[in-house]
Amino acid sequence: MTTLIQLGQRAKQASRALAVASSEAKDAALGAAADLLLQHADAVLEANAEDVERAQDGGAAATVVDRLRLSASRLASMAAGLRGVASLADPVGEVVAGWVRPNGLRIEKVRVPLGVVAIIYENRPNVTSDAAGLCIKSGNAAFLRGSSAALASNRAIATVLRDGFAKAGLPEDALVLVEDTSYGSAREFMRMREVIDCLIPRGGPSLIQSVLENATVPYVIDGDGNCHLYVDASADLDMAISLLVNGKTQRPSVCNATESLVVHRDVADAFVPRAVEALPGVRLVGDEVARRISPSIEPATEEDWGKEYLDLVLSVRVVDDLDAAITHVQRYSSGHTEAIVARDLAAAQRFTREVDAAAVMVNASTRFTDGEQFGFGAEIGISTQKLHARGPMGLRELTTTKYVVTGNGQIRG
Amino acid sequence: MTTLIQLGQRAKQASRALAVASSEAKDAALGAAADLLLQHADAVLEANAEDVERAQDGGAAATVVDRLRLSASRLASMAAGLRGVASLADPVGEVVAGWVRPNGLRIEKVRVPLGVVAIIYENRPNVTSDAAGLCIKSGNAAFLRGSSAALASNRAIATVLRDGFAKAGLPEDALVLVEDTSYGSAREFMRMREVIDCLIPRGGPSLIQSVLENATVPYVIDGDGNCHLYVDASADLDMAISLLVNGKTQRPSVCNATESLVVHRDVADAFVPRAVEALPGVRLVGDEVARRISPSIEPATEEDWGKEYLDLVLSVRVVDDLDAAITHVQRYSSGHTEAIVARDLAAAQRFTREVDAAAVMVNASTRFTDGEQFGFGAEIGISTQKLHARGPMGLRELTTTKYVVTGNGQIRG
Repeated sequence: MTTLIQLGQRAKQASRALAVASSEAKDAALGAAADLLLQHADAVLEANAEDVERAQDGGAAATVVDRLRLSASRLASMAAGLRGVASLADPVGEVVAGWVRPNGLRIEKVRVPLGVVAIIYENRPNVTSDAAGLCIKSGNAAFLRGSSAALASNRAIATVLRDGFAKAGLPEDALVLVEDTSYGSAREFMRMREVIDCLIPRGGPSLIQSVLENATVPYVIDGDGNCHLYVDASADLDMAISLLVNGKTQRPSVCNATESLVVHRDVADAFVPRAVEALPGVRLVGDEVARRISPSIEPATEEDWGKEYLDLVLSVRVVDDLDAAITHVQRYSSGHTEAIVARDLAAAQRFTREVDAAAVMVNASTRFTDGEQFGFGAEIGISTQKLHARGPMGLRELTTTKYVVTGNGQIRG
Repeated sequence: MTTLIQLGQRAKQASRALAVASSEAKDAALGAAADLLLQHADAVLEANAEDVERAQDGGAAATVVDRLRLSASRLASMAAGLRGVASLADPVGEVVAGWVRPNGLRIEKVRVPLGVVAIIYENRPNVTSDAAGLCIKSGNAAFLRGSSAALASNRAIATVLRDGFAKAGLPEDALVLVEDTSYGSAREFMRMREVIDCLIPRGGPSLIQSVLENATVPYVIDGDGNCHLYVDASADLDMAISLLVNGKTQRPSVCNATESLVVHRDVADAFVPRAVEALPGVRLVGDEVARRISPSIEPATEEDWGKEYLDLVLSVRVVDDLDAAITHVQRYSSGHTEAIVARDLAAAQRFTREVDAAAVMVNASTRFTDGEQFGFGAEIGISTQKLHARGPMGLRELTTTKYVVTGNGQIRG
């Protein structure tokens, strides 16, 4: 059996070729992979049916099975995703900055691939294709480790994509799938410093926690979103209702959904009852002031303030002033997205300046923190850490830079 | 005794004030600290004398004592350093990118401080002042942990700087010094995820190794420099000699010194003897071809090719062509600085494109990879990692970004 380190070295080797591959070559490889994915749809769906059957026999929950299940239309989306990424601008080679020093040295900061990007993910087999597409377009080899539940699907997809890359003249090891899905291999994977330039986990809190505890490779964390919507005394309350309803209910299961409502006391009497009315089917928990205004709100516990519900639940807090709002948001923020609704410029300025999060919204739904919505074309995740990348991660966030310094014989005195 | 976590929380608290402090306030604080450093020079030098005496009594090597020892002129340099940093442009608030989406959302990517920057360092007490200056200017709190050997000096410097900050109206906890210099505290320090936003180790290989093994906080590594100078067949050999002598001998003990010479065989007969002649006092070790040309070159071992000598030693390799040069450099590069001497444009282009390092030089000394030389005004180190920052790290590299998104009620459909 091929060892993990041998697999990693294959990816490393391929990354050297990818780093200098032209955009044309990479785009052709993505196109070829998309073609083959559709041509071999039957084989992929057959492999997927195995995974689904195994999961159902094992008594997996319906949501788990749903994440696992592919269909002709899901495959078509995956293929379209690869073509979509091919159509985006290539970040590699971009000159980020350039200047000339007094001694004539010309310094350029140039965007280059990271090398080997590792993705560790859970049951969604489409990640195999989506992540590989973004990695290859940005000149990186994709070193992928999915879950055991999706192994047959992932193997089938990886085989097809690798064939596509090879057909277009890129190394097939531009995508290397780890088939050993044991716990021990996950831990080893997270510690392959010689091979992995950046690890991006895609999955729930337990996966993230495992990366935080075990990883010794550099990583970017796509963490929780306990997103607040603060309704200032100066807010347009109609707009605030619209943003609240959109943030809470348009897709409650995602990280940029609104989880907590913070209301300035000057508008609480007017706003809280409207919020309750506008959110039928949403369970509201709140502090005493909110509950005095709208007794249907249940009491919130300390735990509620820090919670990412990912469900039709909303916490409600009434604050005395903007300072208290910022203090509350800062205390419980997960650093993802925080929003203010305000007409007062100074309030908006203070909120955007003092709240420390990947994205701070003024008069817009928290749901906009997203690579597509930001115009990146595609995203590999949303970073909630501060190093390297923060917020939606597109192709640029899968690169690093290199200084190219050109002289004519300069030496240091 | 104050616990490590209490100290960290003080720094965290101070970081919130620093993040929104004006450039004027930060510059005034750095000026006040510089003034006090000179006013209290006697007290600092007295504390330093204790450290020096203790080190000498303990039989420390002369180089160790030299790193530890302060003088009136070293203190003056430290004060000048603080003023120099104050005079640099403030990176905080810089709008790195901005655009408007089709739905009217205005997206700005704004530079903001990291928060708490932790520095773990060895015997140089000037780091206490230099690092604090860079952290404060970039809006971060400095959480510092020096060595036990320099404790009295660091404590005296930190006290003076903290007084200066407070005098100018900034929180004194903008600089927090850890006085527990036990091994256990170092390990705990590297794992304070709740407090530390970025850890930068300043020291030798054993410190770096300890960070790689123990740290769970995000960090930026300032690693080894096994820097190569490749002399292409197309090189101006006079220029190559000048760059070689400068890279190897101008300051052999630093990370951007040239450690290895790689020569194209077409110019080896002409160049290698000139290199030997130009480097009196330098021990040369080389491969068989180099030794046939210049028998005074000693045989190199496999270990030599990967070695950062930091001394008057140079390894010499003769290669068959550009491909072999790139392969050799890639294999043994520490990812710091690699240089080519060439007149041929295609050779220079291939080298800069294919060699994966923080800086790639064309016809310039490897010694130029440096914050001052790049025009950053000051540097906190030179990153040899790919995530977050790569190459010389100035004030900008001590920041992250935040997306500020402004709308007028946009919701997602």
